[in-house]
Amino acid sequence: MTAREIILKKRDGKNLTANEVNFFIHAYLCGEIADYQMSALLMAVYFQGMSFDETVTLTRIMRDSGEVVDFSNLPGVKVDKHSTGGVGDKVSLILAPLVAAAGVYVPMISGRGLGHTGGTLDKLESIPGFKTRLPLSRFKKQVEEIGTCLIGQTEEICPADRRIYAMRDATATVQSIPLICGSILSKKLAEGSNALVLDVKVGNGAIFEDANTADELATHLIRTATAFNLNTVALLTDMSQPLGIAAGNWVEVVESIDVLQGRGPADTRQVTLALGAIMLQLAGKTQNLQNGMTQLRALLDNGAAWKKFLEIVRAQEGDTTFLENPDKYPAPKHRLEVKAERDGFIAAINARAIGKLSMLLGAGRKTVDDVVDYTAGMFIHQKIGDRVQNDEPLITLQNSGQRPDQSFVQSARNCFIINDQPVAPPQLLRKLLSAQGVHSITEIV
Amino acid sequence: MTAREIILKKRDGKNLTANEVNFFIHAYLCGEIADYQMSALLMAVYFQGMSFDETVTLTRIMRDSGEVVDFSNLPGVKVDKHSTGGVGDKVSLILAPLVAAAGVYVPMISGRGLGHTGGTLDKLESIPGFKTRLPLSRFKKQVEEIGTCLIGQTEEICPADRRIYAMRDATATVQSIPLICGSILSKKLAEGSNALVLDVKVGNGAIFEDANTADELATHLIRTATAFNLNTVALLTDMSQPLGIAAGNWVEVVESIDVLQGRGPADTRQVTLALGAIMLQLAGKTQNLQNGMTQLRALLDNGAAWKKFLEIVRAQEGDTTFLENPDKYPAPKHRLEVKAERDGFIAAINARAIGKLSMLLGAGRKTVDDVVDYTAGMFIHQKIGDRVQNDEPLITLQNSGQRPDQSFVQSARNCFIINDQPVAPPQLLRKLLSAQGVHSITEIV
Repeated sequence: MTAREIILKKRDGKNLTANEVNFFIHAYLCGEIADYQMSALLMAVYFQGMSFDETVTLTRIMRDSGEVVDFSNLPGVKVDKHSTGGVGDKVSLILAPLVAAAGVYVPMISGRGLGHTGGTLDKLESIPGFKTRLPLSRFKKQVEEIGTCLIGQTEEICPADRRIYAMRDATATVQSIPLICGSILSKKLAEGSNALVLDVKVGNGAIFEDANTADELATHLIRTATAFNLNTVALLTDMSQPLGIAAGNWVEVVESIDVLQGRGPADTRQVTLALGAIMLQLAGKTQNLQNGMTQLRALLDNGAAWKKFLEIVRAQEGDTTFLENPDKYPAPKHRLEVKAERDGFIAAINARAIGKLSMLLGAGRKTVDDVVDYTAGMFIHQKIGDRVQNDEPLITLQNSGQRPDQSFVQSARNCFIINDQPVAPPQLLRKLLSAQGVHSITEIV
Repeated sequence: MTAREIILKKRDGKNLTANEVNFFIHAYLCGEIADYQMSALLMAVYFQGMSFDETVTLTRIMRDSGEVVDFSNLPGVKVDKHSTGGVGDKVSLILAPLVAAAGVYVPMISGRGLGHTGGTLDKLESIPGFKTRLPLSRFKKQVEEIGTCLIGQTEEICPADRRIYAMRDATATVQSIPLICGSILSKKLAEGSNALVLDVKVGNGAIFEDANTADELATHLIRTATAFNLNTVALLTDMSQPLGIAAGNWVEVVESIDVLQGRGPADTRQVTLALGAIMLQLAGKTQNLQNGMTQLRALLDNGAAWKKFLEIVRAQEGDTTFLENPDKYPAPKHRLEVKAERDGFIAAINARAIGKLSMLLGAGRKTVDDVVDYTAGMFIHQKIGDRVQNDEPLITLQNSGQRPDQSFVQSARNCFIINDQPVAPPQLLRKLLSAQGVHSITEIV
């Protein structure tokens, strides 16, 4: 068995055996198979796909390449959430304290932003002092004591996934359903969750733009998770425009604080409540989603979720005075308002381009080595369906690095399509899927 | 422009601009683009192909990545031959001195064996003392003085191709027509040839097994070469069984000596004469192929080609006493005769498996770092169509490394399919193609 033979087999559309996948990944981790052979295999998988059995094997081998956390000493179901990524998606920051406040253990391992999508870790690290690199022992202890902990993928968790994932963006092999399944699920299984809600984004700001492929991804994720008894539900949500009003890092923390204090944009709040209700149901803490939504709304309104958030930030060494008083945070050096040049209705927003613009402002990374400007980001003042007048602000750009020039203004303006005809806003919550099939979403919309 | 964007574009089946190909290759050579991004692009090209314009661009950029030899000071057309590779293909060793003896300049840059195919350089280096790593200045001088020089790709020639080619076998991206065109033609253009004959092999021992793909490869090579005014003719020849009787390194030198002295197997002799006649025609040294064949036959029979071969070997520091007296060469330590186990007719031979067996005996390389055993190889006693009797020898295996065990005997025997019905031998010379179309081969068969 050689690396070349295995790449050839996949290139020619044949299924790899468990032995072959195992050999390839372990030889890769030992340095016997080169990065350039791994990336060739990834591209072959991109084109030829993987069978269900291959995907399960890949997930299992990636999970077992590192440590697997055991939370069986804690009572009840441990539930995590994963989002396939979008623009302005700060849901994890609100959801983890909210669901933990409802008495459910939420072990959460998140990622960094890369390309046009933001990353939960970068947002959290914009809070001065906040630590996302904690040893697994401390992660475990904090989940036990506070109910949740938000960290990055440690050295011990899924090293196979970590090394492969680091290459996928740079080799244009991100959009492969079996590779996505393996990457997401190996980490969720390793962090000790036994149930999972997936926020599968659909639209031009998502990993897959069209609803059919997003659907296919959700179905494969659920099917693969089921093979590991990881009880998984997927909610397909709209990403044809940014979520909420803020996109960046600190600006998203501020929006999260608003929601945690019972305020905040309706869409951010709704997606969070819906995902949270599913988590409560997976944990057996509610009979139905409607009741779960009601429980969670109360925890936002009565300050319990906000208190839990402060508890997390304190435990992870963040300075809560900035949360109590966001005005204390360093202001961005530059701020630029982009205005509409005509009257009309917002017909479409290029969320992917907005995400890319946010990255270019300094809020994200072009390459894994880039340094993030936590003050960088934007406020989106208009959403699809809104009526806008000439000279009204569409979007505000801000950062502290190089002052954004007129090309930014033009690019930002181009992200908004304004038409004469009224336009209906997109449906925010699209579809609810589980191993049992498609479910009604009337309870949560 | 980023590497990722370029890989993505090709992955999605779009054509790359000249700027994009140029950026990718130069950034790769500078170390700004990693091997793993190059291999991902190669696999994307494997699946999505390249347009004619892209292939020409790739060839040009690879040619210009290093030095380009200028032979315009020499009179007449400089002609080289390239074979797409097969088992027992020692034609270059005979052809270069033969055509040089006919007064045509033959600048020849060859490759090493990798996988199941042998390499001209390894065969030449089995001659004690023979140097294939010569500086370009010496290569040029020898072509001027002797008419030909057989060397390997130097550091100065097509560094882009050298680095990419080194990865292609290990990443299963060899069988891509645009990548093959770029690799072959960039080197031929850089070595200073202005005409080229291609020996495009067809059959189970060739890079492409089926005639249609071999045809497609020949057509693309001719079309791309024409864009550079490299006058190119392709001869499609049979590789459904090894060429000649010997496969290995020193054993192929010995067979070459036989042919150069006017003897040798009919098939090796015929392919060499046909390719040589095409070269004479490309150089304007003959009116038609039939006349060219006659000229060359005379040069084999009168010792002129043999004398030229000795001249080359002497110029490249090889010890000609081994050529004058091959029995002086170290004998292989192990020799194993594999016999037929039934009467019948040879219906088919698995040339690829024979090539692989030869490699495993030590005649070739599994990886680029393997050391070659020059005494290793085999003699093929039966060809397709031959009548064979039970217990008659099919093939003799030999080497000086680890003694071949019974699994070698069984593998070797399995390479021969013996049936009861008589079988016609395959047509050795299949098709003659040029920029003008398909030509009659009646003159050369």
